Amino acid sequence: MRFSKTFIKTLRTAPKDEIATNGALLTRAGYIHKEMAGVYDYLPLGLRVIENIKGVIREELNKLGCEEIQMSALQNPEPWEKTGRFSDQEVDIWFKTELASGGKLGLAPTHEEPITTMLKSYISSYKDLPLYVYQFQTKFRNELRAKSGILRGREFLMKDLYSFHTSEEDLDKFYAEVEQAYNRIFTRLGIGEDTFETFASGGIFSKYSHEFQTVLPVGEDTIYYNGDKSVVLNKEVLEDETLADLGVTREELTETTAAEVGNIFKLKFKYSEPLGLKYIDENNAQQNIYMGCYGIGVSRVMGVIVERFADDKGLVWPEEVAPYKYYLVGIGEEGRAVAEKFYQGREDEVLFDDRNVRPGEKFADADLMGLPYRIVISDKTLAEDAAEITNRATGENKLINLSELNNL
Amino acid sequence: MRFSKTFIKTLRTAPKDEIATNGALLTRAGYIHKEMAGVYDYLPLGLRVIENIKGVIREELNKLGCEEIQMSALQNPEPWEKTGRFSDQEVDIWFKTELASGGKLGLAPTHEEPITTMLKSYISSYKDLPLYVYQFQTKFRNELRAKSGILRGREFLMKDLYSFHTSEEDLDKFYAEVEQAYNRIFTRLGIGEDTFETFASGGIFSKYSHEFQTVLPVGEDTIYYNGDKSVVLNKEVLEDETLADLGVTREELTETTAAEVGNIFKLKFKYSEPLGLKYIDENNAQQNIYMGCYGIGVSRVMGVIVERFADDKGLVWPEEVAPYKYYLVGIGEEGRAVAEKFYQGREDEVLFDDRNVRPGEKFADADLMGLPYRIVISDKTLAEDAAEITNRATGENKLINLSELNNL
Repeated sequence: MRFSKTFIKTLRTAPKDEIATNGALLTRAGYIHKEMAGVYDYLPLGLRVIENIKGVIREELNKLGCEEIQMSALQNPEPWEKTGRFSDQEVDIWFKTELASGGKLGLAPTHEEPITTMLKSYISSYKDLPLYVYQFQTKFRNELRAKSGILRGREFLMKDLYSFHTSEEDLDKFYAEVEQAYNRIFTRLGIGEDTFETFASGGIFSKYSHEFQTVLPVGEDTIYYNGDKSVVLNKEVLEDETLADLGVTREELTETTAAEVGNIFKLKFKYSEPLGLKYIDENNAQQNIYMGCYGIGVSRVMGVIVERFADDKGLVWPEEVAPYKYYLVGIGEEGRAVAEKFYQGREDEVLFDDRNVRPGEKFADADLMGLPYRIVISDKTLAEDAAEITNRATGENKLINLSELNNL
Repeated sequence: MRFSKTFIKTLRTAPKDEIATNGALLTRAGYIHKEMAGVYDYLPLGLRVIENIKGVIREELNKLGCEEIQMSALQNPEPWEKTGRFSDQEVDIWFKTELASGGKLGLAPTHEEPITTMLKSYISSYKDLPLYVYQFQTKFRNELRAKSGILRGREFLMKDLYSFHTSEEDLDKFYAEVEQAYNRIFTRLGIGEDTFETFASGGIFSKYSHEFQTVLPVGEDTIYYNGDKSVVLNKEVLEDETLADLGVTREELTETTAAEVGNIFKLKFKYSEPLGLKYIDENNAQQNIYMGCYGIGVSRVMGVIVERFADDKGLVWPEEVAPYKYYLVGIGEEGRAVAEKFYQGREDEVLFDDRNVRPGEKFADADLMGLPYRIVISDKTLAEDAAEITNRATGENKLINLSELNNL
């Protein structure tokens, strides 16, 4: 992309009420625009980051045989009333609205009820199982406070996957596959080393669920880990029984803050039973269906990556997430001409800063925008038949020969 | 995709209240699922059709230098109050909701107000113009009745493009480019021959706007055209002044029904003025910004394509839109083995019906699902070292040599 052709500008300031680092930096770097607390627009660079995160998740889930769909945001109360979750006492973050033709509707904060109901049209026999269905869908949650930038949205993008099984063993097997897929996803997204699978509270049918928590000073959750981090658990399950289950003592555990980037949950019959999703087994008997659900907060992950890697100069993107790989600057007539030539055919991986502004301004914007590599071609580098390439994360800086550059 | 690995099944019946052909056929063929009137889920095949339509639109708009973003669905009333459009009297299809922390919100039925407001952070000088920004975004419209399947949704996907200019000439120039892009888009989507650019009512600032209307028996609009279809206009502007402007008489015009698939509109200062989007010109004077807006109903286009091409056997997809290009059937042990081999590496363009069901059932599903080509490999075809390939649209049917098949 040519900088001169995009409407994006870096901004000196973020909105005054933007107290979160991720919100302020992403705004200043031109990735997002705040509509109101917890509600953001994604500008061209921000949308590319979101699409990259979705791409990684999609690739890993498709490997497991998961199928992508898209459910509606508007929710008929009926299935939610069957599980008791349309009640504002039960679920306190509903946005509700009304049909002009009469009747209440909700804006989906999650999709267990509609997907379980929808699948009644498609599952009848054990031959139809197992199946795994996911979507990337905007969720709406009427949070009282939303001051964490895109870490906690009133409108945000989530990946939610639901699995359906004939037996607990089959659910357990798939659950373990998702655990591994999640580890691969967070590693590819650059936060693998800081992200831990934690024990979290279960529900009626399971003692524990699991969360994927990224250690972060501004994280809203508290987690506890032992020395080698082989045992990590959430505050809500920090009790004698859990400690005994996991074979650790309270004294062995260290407390830290973290942000939840994913969760996985064995729902078993929690939704399939009240909503009547059943199958006929080999002996022609009707059976309940075992369910699991598996979420990743896509826009939250983007915020977590910002918080984890940003420095005092601006954003720092891991390679698989970055909107473009290279930030290209040509200085002087010949430098600009060589840069122009390098840019040709690389429109999709290079942000070419072809603006008529001082090099210093370009360097500052390169730092703020946080693309993995900055390439500078100037009379000085050309004197050595080279370009200068700088790693945004490490600051490492070297000259590379022009022929090597053209092989990038 | 392997049919045996997807949860999709064709269904004998659609919901009883599904009176629209597009809704009923898409449901029976496993492309969509109805949540309520005007609100649908997109299942794997349906989502692929939507993504294909988006892909064609994106490609043509990017050629014009348009930039993709994504605005929020939740709407702060403030900018809408400045244009008078938050009022339910003025815009009668709002879904409204309330923040838990207090205050009304709307669900965006369109995005002129927020995008105009957002761009105040990015436009200051004539050097920042022109610019063209678009999105694919779910729109919410609280229609009293929604009985046309995905032709008229309460929740639906729209592409909306907005352009910003320093002069009327520049707006006119871009408007003409979009007209051409729209013609290319509808041609690629297979409805070019039946889609006409019509004169429609303008607004405060323009005498006429233009709509792209696809001739369709179930279309909700009425359009009039002359003999060679060089003049086409909407019912709302069928009056003496328009006829004089266009140089046709009422007698020369034929009436027909049509569905609006796109519209383009010279807004000029309609939104930029009340919302205060201005720029500084070469002489340091503040000036209003000329705006245009350009919509395409993405999910509606999918419905229009269904209505236009479906026959009594089921759906018929044009090639650029189809979720897969080939529906593959192997009959008999050797036929299945050769089919399996052909399928390898073509997972993204072949729907391989590898189910253990009768060939007749596969053929019926192939017809219902409407992929462009059905390939059948059986002992009979293999005896001639060939496969049978059938064009879904024309019914044309021929044997092609296996080596030719493998070059497809």
